[in-house]
Amino acid sequence: MEQEFSSSLLENAVSSLSRLPGVGRKTALRFALHLLRRPSDEAVAIGEAIINLRTGIRYCSVCHNISESEICPLCASPKRDNSVVCVVENVKDVMSIENTRRFDGLYHVLGGLISPVDGIGPDLLEIQSLADRVKAGGITEVILATGATVEADTTNYYIYRMLTRISPELKITQLARGVSVGDELEYTDEVTLARSLTARTPFEL
Amino acid sequence: MEQEFSSSLLENAVSSLSRLPGVGRKTALRFALHLLRRPSDEAVAIGEAIINLRTGIRYCSVCHNISESEICPLCASPKRDNSVVCVVENVKDVMSIENTRRFDGLYHVLGGLISPVDGIGPDLLEIQSLADRVKAGGITEVILATGATVEADTTNYYIYRMLTRISPELKITQLARGVSVGDELEYTDEVTLARSLTARTPFEL
Repeated sequence: MEQEFSSSLLENAVSSLSRLPGVGRKTALRFALHLLRRPSDEAVAIGEAIINLRTGIRYCSVCHNISESEICPLCASPKRDNSVVCVVENVKDVMSIENTRRFDGLYHVLGGLISPVDGIGPDLLEIQSLADRVKAGGITEVILATGATVEADTTNYYIYRMLTRISPELKITQLARGVSVGDELEYTDEVTLARSLTARTPFEL
Repeated sequence: MEQEFSSSLLENAVSSLSRLPGVGRKTALRFALHLLRRPSDEAVAIGEAIINLRTGIRYCSVCHNISESEICPLCASPKRDNSVVCVVENVKDVMSIENTRRFDGLYHVLGGLISPVDGIGPDLLEIQSLADRVKAGGITEVILATGATVEADTTNYYIYRMLTRISPELKITQLARGVSVGDELEYTDEVTLARSLTARTPFEL
């Protein structure tokens, strides 16, 4: 049963907040009542941060990562190795990889994965723009840094075929598959175990 | 480990959104990335709804329920029975009782319950203003509509003592305690069971 609120401002806030992912009307009401108990400045700051986020952020015209300028700071940085491009599904993946501090190349954000079931074909993703970057020259390696799902495999295969046709000498790599840190062997699936056995590496102390 | 974002707008949105109750930085990031994928209008509408909520809503000077005017629509309504006042802990309780559509009196929102452990004494709550309403006359019944906790019992006892001193003929009632609809007797606690046995009512078809 939907609650009706005497106040249209509250009703408006609750129906707006319940548009956030995973937030129903009950949680939205909890957010709204919390905001009412907090100082006015704080609630206004949250509202403005949302508006500024959406109106101020654009997408980098090179790598399609979120940016506040035409070219994002990563693509514009002279410190990054622009011969290596790491292809990822979304903006969050860029953050995850940046947090490892183990990659100094550039990115290419696809904006999703090929998924015929969901009606997402290659033309809806930033795949052509990746091909254009490779065609423009200067890129020696493309890392396909996607998850290990069927959609990821499909997308990777599609990109692999396209890029090898454009530039046969291009090095195309993918993330190592193997046992995750902290995983017990007992609970590791067979495919992962088989792959990590085949791709075994010299023992390191 | 806290993620750092290349964009200050994103950082700002994430740290703002993570101030909502039960929302950590991970969820806040999910909210922010969702907002970035939605049309600009929608994100701006959410931001504005939050700002308008906090800046537009005030508290009714009579019952302390949320209101958009000096006196809330419930207190101002000629259709409501202003001789009965239902005392509740917070704004949400008003909504819950209104949703039953079984009460046509007025409310009084305490803004909390007496809780010595949390340092909340009667002076921090709207108890004096309740006494003033009773003193002003016209109220024949006060319903103590709180939950069944120790704090609620303490608060009810305090209010009961205060109001009977002011107006000995005032009718003071409380919500019926008993077996909840849908509860199995097997899992009902002894105190509730004892009370519902003592307060048994004629069988209704």
